[in-house]
Amino acid sequence: MPHLDVLRHARCLVTGGMGFIGSNLAHRLVALDADVLLVDSLHPDHGGNPFNVAAVRDRVEVTVADLCDRDSAAALVRGRDFIFNLAGQVSHLDSMRDPFGDLEANCRTHLTLLEACRATNRGVKVVYASTRQVYGRPDYLPVDEQHAVHPTDINGVHKLAGERYHKIYNHVHHVRTTSLRLTNTYGPRQLMRHNRQGFVPWFIRLAIDGEEIGLFGDGEQLRDFNYVDDVVDALLRAAASDAADGEVFNLGASPAVSLRRFTEQLLEVAGGGRYRLVPFPPDRKIIDIGDYYADYGKIERMLGWQPHVPLADGLGRTVEYYRRHKEHYW
Amino acid sequence: MPHLDVLRHARCLVTGGMGFIGSNLAHRLVALDADVLLVDSLHPDHGGNPFNVAAVRDRVEVTVADLCDRDSAAALVRGRDFIFNLAGQVSHLDSMRDPFGDLEANCRTHLTLLEACRATNRGVKVVYASTRQVYGRPDYLPVDEQHAVHPTDINGVHKLAGERYHKIYNHVHHVRTTSLRLTNTYGPRQLMRHNRQGFVPWFIRLAIDGEEIGLFGDGEQLRDFNYVDDVVDALLRAAASDAADGEVFNLGASPAVSLRRFTEQLLEVAGGGRYRLVPFPPDRKIIDIGDYYADYGKIERMLGWQPHVPLADGLGRTVEYYRRHKEHYW
Repeated sequence: MPHLDVLRHARCLVTGGMGFIGSNLAHRLVALDADVLLVDSLHPDHGGNPFNVAAVRDRVEVTVADLCDRDSAAALVRGRDFIFNLAGQVSHLDSMRDPFGDLEANCRTHLTLLEACRATNRGVKVVYASTRQVYGRPDYLPVDEQHAVHPTDINGVHKLAGERYHKIYNHVHHVRTTSLRLTNTYGPRQLMRHNRQGFVPWFIRLAIDGEEIGLFGDGEQLRDFNYVDDVVDALLRAAASDAADGEVFNLGASPAVSLRRFTEQLLEVAGGGRYRLVPFPPDRKIIDIGDYYADYGKIERMLGWQPHVPLADGLGRTVEYYRRHKEHYW
Repeated sequence: MPHLDVLRHARCLVTGGMGFIGSNLAHRLVALDADVLLVDSLHPDHGGNPFNVAAVRDRVEVTVADLCDRDSAAALVRGRDFIFNLAGQVSHLDSMRDPFGDLEANCRTHLTLLEACRATNRGVKVVYASTRQVYGRPDYLPVDEQHAVHPTDINGVHKLAGERYHKIYNHVHHVRTTSLRLTNTYGPRQLMRHNRQGFVPWFIRLAIDGEEIGLFGDGEQLRDFNYVDDVVDALLRAAASDAADGEVFNLGASPAVSLRRFTEQLLEVAGGGRYRLVPFPPDRKIIDIGDYYADYGKIERMLGWQPHVPLADGLGRTVEYYRRHKEHYW
């Protein structure tokens, strides 16, 4: 099993470092005594939020830059031991409305970063945040890493391309890379301003505001949910493990939970609120994937990872965080 | 089985229309009495060659334009009944050296074209030339369309993304599309100037010039080869068939032939020349896919397609063509 000691004093770059997962990772890296550089484009529609790193601001270096710029990328990558490549556009809906923006954020950005590694720092280890979206609508459940990939939207196509880049640079150019296919991740420091980045943060916002949650369809769609700290733990293990080089791992949690059950749990934790079943809007229905939950046995076996935070706990911490810091997220 | 009569007087756009397959298709469309518009960027490293369409120049309209330009794309797409989307960068090696160029040619171009269709012409039918390269190194043989996709190079990643775009625009935006996964295609009007677009045209050039052919490895790698007229026939059937909408089809030929046997056949047809086994250069070995041949039963069943031109015949016509028109290709 990987030892996280290797992160101590290690020079780490986190792309998307002021975003949801990047900023939670930054907190953990600081606690591990790593040397942390965060880069974020602060794209207005993406998840970067300076408040996310306010509490560790004096212990991390922060750069606002667009990774598509080759010179910036080269300068950022040089001399790093680890790169946590979390930058990207995550809205499925936005990718369908502006596929070119998604192409820039999810393809060109990663090619630029990997080309910079190839040119200036082949010794680096890169961990990439991929997504279950690459599978599209599951052929069988639970979905393991052998499952066919057939993404249903442009975001999934580009995230898959990004994952393949990382695999190819590992194989062909010997820039070591690992990809994690994240499922629904929730927790503090997520983008809460609009509802285009998935239902989870939006439901949490509605619950906190005591507004009615509209649950699409019959609410029986199954999903698995990871609290962000568990995802951060997986990223660190992937970074620290040589056995993970060139590999792709699912994250996940069991048992899977229906959206209705998730919502009920959330309302219970929030101490009130209500939900209603509503018909799917057509633009969401057509890219919806039905039931999904992962087989995460591979990362369990190879990296000793398991999710540790139960849903009720995680939702509790999440609701508490946003209640305390609402003005920075709403 | 599809009736090609629907092409008669149909307004057809061929992207990459002065390239290898595009120009052969143009000849066939003219013979079918279609209304033909060819667009080509004439990118210096790609396959576009004005001589390819010289013989039909007075019966087709030709535009030199970059499809990445959204205004050009919209103007070209408007009012068309069929689009044969053959534009692209096809060199695996070039994609590894210049992944950004490949991204433009094989991703942005297709997104631009499909967005133009969505905006101005949802009634159009689009046929996309994909490639066996999306499969990468086969898990089993023959490779059918259910085979996992795991491309080994950047070109394969981007061609797969292009194919997925077409599938998504069919499913979500109701722009009807069909993709064909081409295998090794050979014949008149191919790019013969450099050896970065696959071994087939290069071997043909060396055979015609009486120069020694260097065959990588032991020469026993199996491949399937399609003469370009058979590929053109598949493109037309895909266009004319409603059953093909949203589908992906392998092309192929049986039996598979070893590279050594292909080379011997070529030398026989060319009436001389020689070959030698040479070790794989590292940059080619690392993206080599080993044996490959397709199961093309799906297109046989659904569209009644079969390859008709035997290898010896096709090579004979090919060698004769380049001997006659060498000055336009060498």
